[in-house]
Amino acid sequence: MVSSLRLPALTSLISPSFTRRSTVSLRRRLHLRPPLAAGFSAQSAASSPTETEDRVDSKKSGRVQDRGSTDRVITPRSQDFNAWYLDVIANAELADYGPVRGTMVIRPYGYAMWEAIQDYLNVKFKETGHSNMYFPQFIPYSFIEKEASHVEGFSPELALVTIGGGKELEEKLVVRPTSETIVNHMFTQWIHSYRDLPLMINQWANVTRWEMRTKPFVRTLEFLWQEGHTAHATLEEAEKEALQMIDVYTKFAYEQAAIPVIAGRKSKVETFAGADKTYTIEAMMGDRKALQAGTSHNLGQNFSRAFGTQFTDENGLRQHVWQTSWAISTRFVGGIIMTHGDDAGLMLPPRIAPIQVVIVPIWKKVDEKTGVLDAASSVAETLKNAGLKVKLDDTDQRTPGWKFNFWEMKGVPLRIEIGPRDVSSGSVVISRRDIPGKQGKVFGISMEPSILEAYVKDRLDEIQSSLLQRAISFRDSNIVDVSSYEELKEAISLGKWARGPWSASDADELRIKEETGATIRCFPFEQPQGTKACLMTGKPADEVAIFAKSY
Amino acid sequence: MVSSLRLPALTSLISPSFTRRSTVSLRRRLHLRPPLAAGFSAQSAASSPTETEDRVDSKKSGRVQDRGSTDRVITPRSQDFNAWYLDVIANAELADYGPVRGTMVIRPYGYAMWEAIQDYLNVKFKETGHSNMYFPQFIPYSFIEKEASHVEGFSPELALVTIGGGKELEEKLVVRPTSETIVNHMFTQWIHSYRDLPLMINQWANVTRWEMRTKPFVRTLEFLWQEGHTAHATLEEAEKEALQMIDVYTKFAYEQAAIPVIAGRKSKVETFAGADKTYTIEAMMGDRKALQAGTSHNLGQNFSRAFGTQFTDENGLRQHVWQTSWAISTRFVGGIIMTHGDDAGLMLPPRIAPIQVVIVPIWKKVDEKTGVLDAASSVAETLKNAGLKVKLDDTDQRTPGWKFNFWEMKGVPLRIEIGPRDVSSGSVVISRRDIPGKQGKVFGISMEPSILEAYVKDRLDEIQSSLLQRAISFRDSNIVDVSSYEELKEAISLGKWARGPWSASDADELRIKEETGATIRCFPFEQPQGTKACLMTGKPADEVAIFAKSY
Repeated sequence: MVSSLRLPALTSLISPSFTRRSTVSLRRRLHLRPPLAAGFSAQSAASSPTETEDRVDSKKSGRVQDRGSTDRVITPRSQDFNAWYLDVIANAELADYGPVRGTMVIRPYGYAMWEAIQDYLNVKFKETGHSNMYFPQFIPYSFIEKEASHVEGFSPELALVTIGGGKELEEKLVVRPTSETIVNHMFTQWIHSYRDLPLMINQWANVTRWEMRTKPFVRTLEFLWQEGHTAHATLEEAEKEALQMIDVYTKFAYEQAAIPVIAGRKSKVETFAGADKTYTIEAMMGDRKALQAGTSHNLGQNFSRAFGTQFTDENGLRQHVWQTSWAISTRFVGGIIMTHGDDAGLMLPPRIAPIQVVIVPIWKKVDEKTGVLDAASSVAETLKNAGLKVKLDDTDQRTPGWKFNFWEMKGVPLRIEIGPRDVSSGSVVISRRDIPGKQGKVFGISMEPSILEAYVKDRLDEIQSSLLQRAISFRDSNIVDVSSYEELKEAISLGKWARGPWSASDADELRIKEETGATIRCFPFEQPQGTKACLMTGKPADEVAIFAKSY
Repeated sequence: MVSSLRLPALTSLISPSFTRRSTVSLRRRLHLRPPLAAGFSAQSAASSPTETEDRVDSKKSGRVQDRGSTDRVITPRSQDFNAWYLDVIANAELADYGPVRGTMVIRPYGYAMWEAIQDYLNVKFKETGHSNMYFPQFIPYSFIEKEASHVEGFSPELALVTIGGGKELEEKLVVRPTSETIVNHMFTQWIHSYRDLPLMINQWANVTRWEMRTKPFVRTLEFLWQEGHTAHATLEEAEKEALQMIDVYTKFAYEQAAIPVIAGRKSKVETFAGADKTYTIEAMMGDRKALQAGTSHNLGQNFSRAFGTQFTDENGLRQHVWQTSWAISTRFVGGIIMTHGDDAGLMLPPRIAPIQVVIVPIWKKVDEKTGVLDAASSVAETLKNAGLKVKLDDTDQRTPGWKFNFWEMKGVPLRIEIGPRDVSSGSVVISRRDIPGKQGKVFGISMEPSILEAYVKDRLDEIQSSLLQRAISFRDSNIVDVSSYEELKEAISLGKWARGPWSASDADELRIKEETGATIRCFPFEQPQGTKACLMTGKPADEVAIFAKSY
C-alpha cells in the first residue's frame, strides 16, 4: 500500500524557508484545507542561527533518511490524484497562483521545464523551415467575428480591453486567445504570388482564455505556448505540413518527455474552431484521464476565405491559400508531472529535468568536511563539463536525509552521495530516482572523470527509456478494445480508455459524452487492418476511435 | 553628396514579391506618400515564368550592379532620417504595423535580431545568478495604485481589461506595463527570512503602454522585453546589483551591438516612477538624438513598503527588502538600425546579424551553373560548420546585381561572390558591407576550408570592431563640453550633445527641456576630476551631466 511521504519535521530543520507557504497559498485559494498554522515566519526567525561551520552536528548527517516526522505532506497519488498534483506543484516550487483568479505564476523550476521544451522544439521548427516572429496580442474585435465557427468557439472565452490611455476605445480589443485572425490579416499583406508560398512562421507567446475551471499548467486563464502558422499553395501541402508538425510533437513527446502519446485525428465534434481537420497527441495521465498535449490543424481555406488571403497561382489565377496552425503550451508541463510523478513527488525524464544530477556531500566530523566538499566540487565540475545539468547541494542548513527527500520530491533523475569513506576509496554512491530504495542504489562508482561521466550518462539514458517503457506499459494495460457500447461503458467506468470501431453520428458521440463523460480523443493513425462493425450502430466502420475521460 | 539608393526596376525582375508592399503599408499608415500603383500582383502574375534552368539568360548575370533603374527607393539618411528609418524597416522586412494603432508585427529578420539579443543576455543573466520565470500579465488595478509615484507615472498609459468571459469584471485588470507590483505581491509569499535573499529573477515578456506617439521598435503600444527583479537584505546589495546589471547592458551594447553607449545615472526628474535611482545606457543615433537603450533601477524600499515585502533579519527583526529592476526591450533593435545604418540600408554588427555571410553564385552560361553552384554550396557548408550564419542565395529569380543590393540593404556584413573563374582558380571574392565599392572587395581568397574559415572570421571580427570604432568617433565628435547655458543651447541647436557641470534645480532642468528640447540623459559614470562651476548657476558642481534631445 502507498503511504504518505512525509518530509522532516520543522523542529529538525534549521532553515524552514522552502516551499511550505506555497502549499498554503495553493490550498487557500482552492479552499481544500484550512491554511497551516500562522506565525510560521516568526517561529523560523526565533530559531534563526548564524551560519557557522561548527553548527553541523552528527544528528543532521549520515545516510539516514529522516522521513516520517513532519507535518508537511504530499498527498499520496493513489489517494487523491488532484490533491497530489497540487501538492507536487507547490512543494517542488513549480508554480503558484497569481492574484487574478485562474492565473498562474510559473516559478523558476517549472519554467526551466518549459525552457527545455522550448529549446528542443525551437530547433525542430527551424530545421523544418519555420521562422520565429511576433504578432501583437491585441486583436480588433471585428477580426474574431470574421470566421464563423472561430467566433462561436472563442467568444465565450475572451478577455476584452475597452479602455486605453484613460479613454474608452472605439472598438473593443481582444487579448489574443490564438492568432489565426491577426495572422491572416498580415498574411494578406505579405502573400501575393505563388512564389511567396509556402509562408511558414512560428511565435512563442502568451495567450488568454477566460476559462471557468482552471488547474495549474493544465488550464489557466493565461498560458504560454508556441503557435505555428503556415500558408500553402495547395491542400496537399497544407495537409503534409499539419501531419509533419504533429509528427514533430509526437517525437518530442516520446523522445524528450518520455510520454507515449497516441497521435491521431480528432472527430468532427472535437475539431478546432475554424479547422477542417485537427490532429492531436493524446497522453494518458497517472489517473488514466487523457490530456490533449498538442494539436496541429489543417485550416483548409476557412481563414483565407474569411480574410481574403489570396495568391496568384502559376497560371495567373487568384486562389485562396491553404493554411495550418499548430501549438504546444505550458500545459505540457502538467502532462510531464502527471505522467511520471509518484508518491514521493515529481519524477522527471532526464532530457526535461532542470537538474539531472544532484550531488549530496555527507560528513559527520568537521575535519571530514573539506575533503568531502572538495571531492563533491570536483565531481560536479566533471559532470558540468560533460554538459550535464548538475546541482551541488552543499548547504550546512539541511541534513543529508532531508536533501535526499527534497531532491527526490523535485524529481531529479540521479543523486550522487559522497562521504568520507567514498573520498578515501575514490568512489561515489549513485541512486536512481526511478528505482526506489536499495535497488536503485549502486556503491563504489569510480570518481575518475571518464569512468564517472560515462556511467552517469548511461544511467540517465537508461532512466529516460525506462520512464518511457513504464509509461507505455501503463498506457497499454489501460486501453481496452471494445466492440459494443456496453463494453465501452464498462471500460470507461473502470477508468480506462476504450478503443473501438466507430462510424456513428455526431449525436451518438455527444450522447456518449453525456452518458459516460468520455469523448473521442482521436482516431489513431495506427489502425487495425480491415473494416469492422461500429460499436454503436453495427454498421461498417473503417476506423477505430479512442474514447476516454479527459482534462 | 548622398544620392538615393535605387533598387532594380520591376521590369528587370521576374519575381517582384519582396518587400514593396510593406513599404506601402508603412507609408499608408503614416500618410507620408500616396500608396504605390495598384494591380501590382496581377502584373507580376502576368509575367510569371515557369522556373526552369534555361530561363537564366546573360542579361540577368554577371557582376554588374544594376542599380539606378527603379521606382523603389530608400530615402537617403541625410535627407530625412525618419523616412530613411521607416524605409529600412519596411524594405529589410524587419517589422510591419499591426492592425491596432501603435502595435507592431516583428517579422522574421527583425525578430532574429531580437533573438541574438536574447541569446546573449539570457546567458549573462544566468551567469550572474538570476533564474527565468513568468508572472501573469493581468494585474489587479488596485496593485498599481499602491506605490504613489508608480501610479502617477503609469496610469495615463494603461490598457484595461474590463470584460472577461462575457461579463463585466468586478475589478478592472491592468495589462502589465511593467511588473514591479505583481512581483512584490508574489515576493511577499516567497520571502520570509534573510535566508530567502537575495531573490533574483528575470522574465522575458510582452508589456503594454498606451503611447500616443509611436515609432516602430522605438516606442510601440506593445513591446517585448526582459525585466529583471531582485530583492536583497541591504541597500548596499541592491545598489551593487543595479550597477552590475547596467554593466551587463553596457558590455552587451559595446561588445555585441557595437553601440558605444554612455552609462550613467538619471537625474531625479528622469528617474523611473517608483525608483530611488535609475541607471541608464544612452546611445547616440545617426541623427545624433539620444536613445535610452536600457535601464537598471535601485527601487530602494518603495515597493516593499507599499506591498509589505518583509523578511526577518539575522537578529530576528522584520525588515523591508531592498529591490532592483532592470530591462532591455525590442527598442534596442531600433537602436542598432539607427546607429549603424547608412544610405544603402541596414548595416549589422556581425554578432547581431541574422545572416553573417551571404554567398552569391554567378554564372552566365548554363554549362557554368553546376560548377558554380557546387562550389557555392561547398563554401556555404564549410562556413556553416564553422558556426557562422550563412545564406546561399542561389535563386534563379534575381540577377547577381539585384542580390548584391538586396543583401547590402539587409545589412549582411560579408558577401562572398563565386563565378566560373573563381571556381577554376579555387578562390572567391569577398566584399565588406562596411566598406563600400572596390575598397571593400578582395579577390582571390582561397576556397580551402581552413584558409577561408580563418579569413572570414577575421573579417567579421574586423567589421565588428570597425563598426564600434566608427560609432565611437561619431559619438565623440558630437559631444560638446559646455560651461554655460548659452554654450549648451548652441550645442543643442547644432544637433549635438552637451556635457557640462550641473548642480542646478529640477526646475532649471525642466526649463532647459522647454527651451531647447533637450533633457539630462545622464550623469555619466566617467567623470572628470575635481569640482566645477554649474553651467546654469555657477555654483559648485560635483558632476557633469549630458544633455541631448532624445527619442
